[in-house]
Amino acid sequence: MENRHWLLPEGIDEVLPPNALALERLRRALLDRYGSWGYELVSPPLIEYLESLLTGTGGDLDLKTFKLTDQLTGRTMGVRADITPQVARIDAHLLRAGHPTRLCYCGTVLNTRNDDFGGSRSPLQLGAELYGHAGVESELEILCLMLETLECAAIPEVYLDLGHVGIFRALTRQAGLTPPQEMALFDALQRKAIPEIEGLVAGFGAEAQSAAMLSALAGLSGGPEVLERARVSLSAAPEPAHEAIAQLEHLARQMSRRRPDVQVHFDLAELRGYHYHTGVVFAAYAPGLGTELARGGRYDDIGRVFGRARPACGFSADLKLLYRLGQSEVEHQGGIFAPACDEPGLVQRIRELREQGQRVVCALPGQEGDARAMGCGETLEKQGMEWIVAPVV
Amino acid sequence: MENRHWLLPEGIDEVLPPNALALERLRRALLDRYGSWGYELVSPPLIEYLESLLTGTGGDLDLKTFKLTDQLTGRTMGVRADITPQVARIDAHLLRAGHPTRLCYCGTVLNTRNDDFGGSRSPLQLGAELYGHAGVESELEILCLMLETLECAAIPEVYLDLGHVGIFRALTRQAGLTPPQEMALFDALQRKAIPEIEGLVAGFGAEAQSAAMLSALAGLSGGPEVLERARVSLSAAPEPAHEAIAQLEHLARQMSRRRPDVQVHFDLAELRGYHYHTGVVFAAYAPGLGTELARGGRYDDIGRVFGRARPACGFSADLKLLYRLGQSEVEHQGGIFAPACDEPGLVQRIRELREQGQRVVCALPGQEGDARAMGCGETLEKQGMEWIVAPVV
Repeated sequence: MENRHWLLPEGIDEVLPPNALALERLRRALLDRYGSWGYELVSPPLIEYLESLLTGTGGDLDLKTFKLTDQLTGRTMGVRADITPQVARIDAHLLRAGHPTRLCYCGTVLNTRNDDFGGSRSPLQLGAELYGHAGVESELEILCLMLETLECAAIPEVYLDLGHVGIFRALTRQAGLTPPQEMALFDALQRKAIPEIEGLVAGFGAEAQSAAMLSALAGLSGGPEVLERARVSLSAAPEPAHEAIAQLEHLARQMSRRRPDVQVHFDLAELRGYHYHTGVVFAAYAPGLGTELARGGRYDDIGRVFGRARPACGFSADLKLLYRLGQSEVEHQGGIFAPACDEPGLVQRIRELREQGQRVVCALPGQEGDARAMGCGETLEKQGMEWIVAPVV
Repeated sequence: MENRHWLLPEGIDEVLPPNALALERLRRALLDRYGSWGYELVSPPLIEYLESLLTGTGGDLDLKTFKLTDQLTGRTMGVRADITPQVARIDAHLLRAGHPTRLCYCGTVLNTRNDDFGGSRSPLQLGAELYGHAGVESELEILCLMLETLECAAIPEVYLDLGHVGIFRALTRQAGLTPPQEMALFDALQRKAIPEIEGLVAGFGAEAQSAAMLSALAGLSGGPEVLERARVSLSAAPEPAHEAIAQLEHLARQMSRRRPDVQVHFDLAELRGYHYHTGVVFAAYAPGLGTELARGGRYDDIGRVFGRARPACGFSADLKLLYRLGQSEVEHQGGIFAPACDEPGLVQRIRELREQGQRVVCALPGQEGDARAMGCGETLEKQGMEWIVAPVV
């Protein structure tokens, strides 16, 4: 009978040498980068009571969340499927600063389904969040930090996709859609299913102009000319839709000043994380990598259920995905092979070398494998009274 | 109505600034230390099929493991309650070296109950494992690395508790105990419940000499004289018990040569992790800290169910507990507060400072809080054409 105890569930992976160390190096580089921008590290818990994890985030997170029963209380807990709502709780409840708060994190999340971030059900979610500022400057800072993240992971030719949930929201409100109608249209828009969108819109019985604008949304994607086209085709839209277009334009102009090297696309029907986003939404892609690399946006008031609504924006990514798709270097470690001997002079020498950051592998009596097999290019040899590091010949 | 969405389940905690960064620094220092000893980092998955997580580890891990249903297959998965069996799988199945393999890890585990490592149900398990060598030298290496771990976490006056599951195992075999009898006695021994032990042993109907030796076990704890006392009171024990005592003596002698500063206690009834341990078991404590700080032992053949039985020993600890109990330093971060301005010269200067490892926090237009409120002792000021770092006055 075949031994299959080692098979992992679909979408669940592990990281082995030498990749685990290279991934760790990337993790450190990114968290240090966030620190240099003033983002403070937080480490929210892996599980919480379900109501804390899900409040304010809408139904999509519920379906993604693994449920557990707390044997101590009988209450239902969930394994986090997203860290952003946890960080919102921390900002709202625990950190009571009135000034802007910058927080970052890196931790494993679980997803019941493998429809996210490259098919993984256990992404190593990494992200940064900026609370307490409503202007385009905080969105710009988050976008720049997201771009630096992808550069640090050595992913070339990244481009941005910008959208704004305020446009869709204003149009559905104007058309008087019911929540189920809005949901169905949202779903069809995500799939860019044009005939379905037109069928749905026709069936809603909304006013002709309103219906035409909802249908037009799916076509409003492309380069900078999209915003111009949107102004024309959505000219009869309510004021919030125009404000949203103006905000997008402002942000894009700031981006092109700060990062003229980065291409920006617009997609006014892109509504990722629609349920908790409240303004600009964005994602990063790269040519030939058929998946979203990072995403984020504005989600003002996400902390309201925790007792404190304030402006918020941020981004997140799957560190394992960035590592896999990027060109991070895998170090060759090398090392010094020390003989199996407990002479105090040798023990002391080994300690010193390790303190200097050298990798010293001690031989074990009778072991299989020589210095090379143990990954070492050098050995410790006794010359006179001294223990000397010498190359393996 | 009080807002209670922020309450965490019992035994579940989160780490906030500035502790999260200090914990991260300790994590890095320890993983780097393990690297300098030749231990390679692995990152096993948070969840696996239950049979993979539990095979070979006995029933205690089953009760500790949260169960999840895989929606893709309907199979039962578990959230790991211990990383050691996962690392054994990796050694057995994925790394096919004949020579000794050294692996280390750091990751969150979950526990259904709060009866472990200081009451936490989500320890950040950290550990190192050495596969492929059966001698006392590998146990000594693991013990020394465990001690260095506690030193690195700034926990003073650590002492060791050594035991050996081979003694109890040989005696129960000799006495002909059934598995339930063995289980009951094991349980009473852990609690050092002397009257209960004597009652149990009397009821087993074993030969008088055998029974007396089982009863004697609970009293065999203390300083180095314990091994001498064990030789006398267990003189009629089968050969494997004597071999176990000799192994303990050998290891203790080596330890006192290598680390004469560390006190060693013996406890022949201490059988932690009995179900997968096969030889020496050990734990570290410190005066006044009423909990086990780290533990480990030998668990040869743990990889058998994954297709490869070989010698193994290792240790593990809860990094969050070590951080909490140790005297790790919390850095004061400081930083430079930059004005809200997108002049290219300023943007460039900020970039350079960050690349030098400085923390630069950008003001956001209209924000509340000055440089000091943002944790910065310096600001960026324009003098002539230059942007200069100046102290906050």
